Amino acid sequence: MKPCEEEEEEGRAAAAAGGGADPWKECAEVAVQLARRAGQIIRKALTEEKQVSTKTSAADLVTETDHFVENLIISVLKEKFPSHRFIAEESTAAGSKCVLTDSPTWIIDPVDGTCNFVHRFPTVAVSIGFAVNKELEFGVIYHCTEERLYTGRRGQGAFCNDKRLQVSKETDISKALILTEIGPKRDPATLKLFLGNIERLLKAQAHGVRVIGSSTLALCHLASGAADAYYQFGLHCWDLAAATVIIREAGGTVIDTSGGPLDLMSCRVIAAGTREMAMLIAQEIQTIHYRRDDEN
Amino acid sequence: MKPCEEEEEEGRAAAAAGGGADPWKECAEVAVQLARRAGQIIRKALTEEKQVSTKTSAADLVTETDHFVENLIISVLKEKFPSHRFIAEESTAAGSKCVLTDSPTWIIDPVDGTCNFVHRFPTVAVSIGFAVNKELEFGVIYHCTEERLYTGRRGQGAFCNDKRLQVSKETDISKALILTEIGPKRDPATLKLFLGNIERLLKAQAHGVRVIGSSTLALCHLASGAADAYYQFGLHCWDLAAATVIIREAGGTVIDTSGGPLDLMSCRVIAAGTREMAMLIAQEIQTIHYRRDDEN
Repeated sequence: MKPCEEEEEEGRAAAAAGGGADPWKECAEVAVQLARRAGQIIRKALTEEKQVSTKTSAADLVTETDHFVENLIISVLKEKFPSHRFIAEESTAAGSKCVLTDSPTWIIDPVDGTCNFVHRFPTVAVSIGFAVNKELEFGVIYHCTEERLYTGRRGQGAFCNDKRLQVSKETDISKALILTEIGPKRDPATLKLFLGNIERLLKAQAHGVRVIGSSTLALCHLASGAADAYYQFGLHCWDLAAATVIIREAGGTVIDTSGGPLDLMSCRVIAAGTREMAMLIAQEIQTIHYRRDDEN
Repeated sequence: MKPCEEEEEEGRAAAAAGGGADPWKECAEVAVQLARRAGQIIRKALTEEKQVSTKTSAADLVTETDHFVENLIISVLKEKFPSHRFIAEESTAAGSKCVLTDSPTWIIDPVDGTCNFVHRFPTVAVSIGFAVNKELEFGVIYHCTEERLYTGRRGQGAFCNDKRLQVSKETDISKALILTEIGPKRDPATLKLFLGNIERLLKAQAHGVRVIGSSTLALCHLASGAADAYYQFGLHCWDLAAATVIIREAGGTVIDTSGGPLDLMSCRVIAAGTREMAMLIAQEIQTIHYRRDDEN
């Protein structure tokens, strides 16, 4: 059996056994420990001078902390779970393939909100998601400066520091607080579409639109009922994987911007407390095209 | 002597004596106590159901907590400092004149980020500023959910929970993180200008623009060096008074959007870590007209 098949076999076997036992309990516990450890490193690094480089655009930043934290997380996980696969932001930027198979796969953003991090703007998170058979099993997100740990396990609810999360039940766009992020592309056509979407939502009398600079933490606000909808074009599977489990377990909806099912690799998403709200957002916004994560 | 003249006399006498002594020390201490007390009330209220009303527009919200906290703060201050004057958000909305005289004057926003507060979005603050002879003497801002206390006293520095604040020294807009807020007017022309300004700054290759829903806390991020510039049209003197002292004492610049001196009543502002950055923002943005606070 080739290594890849072995891994897929492991996923299927564990899933088959998963009815009674909890095959991914240890993985989820390790994810929490690693997110906290990474968070400490990021918190310390926030106060220090940084070497900043750019990736796909002048606004797409990376620091040595992104690399350091990603390497730390992956090296610990590889040692504990040698057959597992990894999709992670900086490895992908360095050329690793970003393909989700049936194998147990960790989907990692070591520093979500890198631009905030560079500026010491205290909205920065570690995000660790985990999928088996292409299904998201759990997600762990750690808000580094506020020391809030968000967790979600399929079928077991979502929590922030042990407090159960519950999404908003709002279905009226004119009473909604909506979150979005700019995305890395900054060409004039993309900016027009990005700002046009905000204009449409404000004309639909949304209470407000917020842009906090961390997709992951914006999605956590949604999961905790502090906002009614989130949409974005140009985010990646590592921004979305952990948060998707957390939002669904908090009772929310995560779909494609077309209104169809979520495609984790499509670089676009609508999340909302209710399906009605998600569909209203889908009707309002215009598509901004980004390349899929698995096409890079 | 009429009451008004008495108060102005008090301001002049205290200012004249102010060289050696610290005439407003007690006032600043009371402001800190009140901001913390108000913050506790707001923190508790964040978790509860709210009765929400609108003011100047469907997006200009007010709750019973805004009224309760404002009444609490003003009643305590009136008892301690019976000759002082008050400018406060909800009193002004209810018809009180918003005029800054030479008298010692408290400028209060009981709940900054009311829309966030309504949605339980945890970016909400109490803001208490104090001016004598139309000069801002101190400012106290309390971030209710994160329990961060920002203080600034003229000539004595600015602090967050006793840690000294220092603004960013950035002078290059293409390396800047910029903060703004939407403002209460949502007519199509205002929205076009609001979004057009963000477009101009992103085309000038700013690292990012953030909209967090609290002018006061955005200004505190600026004071702590976590952002390089802030601008807004449609904010009020109670959003600005406390933060202006804190930013100036952290080494920053607070000016009018024309590039001229700040006019606290003009409902518009640019704040930045450096004067160069403030002037670059002034050159980029287009004016959105709002009525002055002292014309209402």
